[in-house]
Amino acid sequence: MSALMPANPVRIVLVETRHPGNIGSAARAMKTMGFHDLVLVAPRQPDHADAVALAAGAADVLAQARICTTLEEAVADCGFVAGCTARSRHVVLPGLEPRAAASQLLDEAGAAPVALVFGTERTGLTNEDLQRCHAAVHIPANPEYGSLNLAAAVQVLCYELRLAMLARSADGGATPSRGDDPLATQAQMEAFFAHLGRMLDAIEFHKGRSPETIMRRLRGLFLRARLDERELRILHGILSDAQRMAQLAGSRKD
Amino acid sequence: MSALMPANPVRIVLVETRHPGNIGSAARAMKTMGFHDLVLVAPRQPDHADAVALAAGAADVLAQARICTTLEEAVADCGFVAGCTARSRHVVLPGLEPRAAASQLLDEAGAAPVALVFGTERTGLTNEDLQRCHAAVHIPANPEYGSLNLAAAVQVLCYELRLAMLARSADGGATPSRGDDPLATQAQMEAFFAHLGRMLDAIEFHKGRSPETIMRRLRGLFLRARLDERELRILHGILSDAQRMAQLAGSRKD
Repeated sequence: MSALMPANPVRIVLVETRHPGNIGSAARAMKTMGFHDLVLVAPRQPDHADAVALAAGAADVLAQARICTTLEEAVADCGFVAGCTARSRHVVLPGLEPRAAASQLLDEAGAAPVALVFGTERTGLTNEDLQRCHAAVHIPANPEYGSLNLAAAVQVLCYELRLAMLARSADGGATPSRGDDPLATQAQMEAFFAHLGRMLDAIEFHKGRSPETIMRRLRGLFLRARLDERELRILHGILSDAQRMAQLAGSRKD
Repeated sequence: MSALMPANPVRIVLVETRHPGNIGSAARAMKTMGFHDLVLVAPRQPDHADAVALAAGAADVLAQARICTTLEEAVADCGFVAGCTARSRHVVLPGLEPRAAASQLLDEAGAAPVALVFGTERTGLTNEDLQRCHAAVHIPANPEYGSLNLAAAVQVLCYELRLAMLARSADGGATPSRGDDPLATQAQMEAFFAHLGRMLDAIEFHKGRSPETIMRRLRGLFLRARLDERELRILHGILSDAQRMAQLAGSRKD
């Protein structure tokens, strides 16, 4: 493993897990593969006895888990976020198989924290959740019965992450980076999307169209591009100038 | 998959499983990866309600499971048998990682039935069991906490088997695509960059800055994102609206 690889290279985020036992089983699955950084978003009863029982020897992972109220909060400092989803059809994000996802997560982990996100047991990640992700990970399951339980999905992904880490420690790989500018964090991307939304309002773009659909598309596009901080500054500048023009047009209209 | 590959290419054998719930979870793990041939050796209470409950939608796998009294009976017709074991030290057998084991199991499956064998929850396969195996499979787990539960081990191995099967059937495999919309051609991208340039002029973005440097950055960003035609239409719409506002502002300025 590269000297730059942090001790806990990948954060596992479980969103609104319903059954405490599944949190415990997921913690165990993580630890068997050497992962310890667990974040729970709005979990139901994370300290339930079932969670502790099913964590078995991984109670330490459970005890150290951080609890957040939103996914946004859980991944705010992350440079790369992958969301695990059973449905790859309607997702605008680039789709990755577990092996490719593991490789990319480790590539990115040298630069900033990275996260792998799992949704609720029944319905998985919502479209809103997926809009905070740079990529969708899809376990290539049986199309006639693809319902891996939560801990099983965590197990498969953490297994691939472990294999990828072992492969890297074998060849002492370095962390690739695209240029001199650090990649934008998720919080910076959210600020950009908010600015983009205000600019679209200012130029009266949404007339007769669904803002949600358009914004989902635009989010997918810009998250996929993995913007760096300099690119973000350029885009903010463009948005501000377009807003200024719209304001000028509006003030003269009155 | 080869034409010679049987419909159920790999038999999963669970030896003396103690907890019925684990049998159910293992059946589910198998089915999520497309495997249905389950044999139980001297199980305790295989028809227990826990087994059925945890099998979830894989109750058919459970119902069709064959029960044997010995491992010898369970693998009697097999040409190749791999045993999953946590300890690789004292085993005289050739050791395989899951990926290599999956490949070899499928290689052998064309000639005769093959089996992948899992031991009891606590102690795994006995030395006597392992003497009926051609190879030992070892999941490369965290050396400080390697205790995958039974269903988790079945999940990981069946996942590797599925990947190996998909890889073999991929000769005529389809190219993955991101969504329904075709990716933009290079000519469409050039038309977009020209439009972007006109819009930046209209909002007076370039004042004091190098247009070449900015445009190079923006081209890099949008090319990297691999835009599709629908995304391009949205972006053209935004550029046109911003131009319209700038024109309005300009005409009122004069």
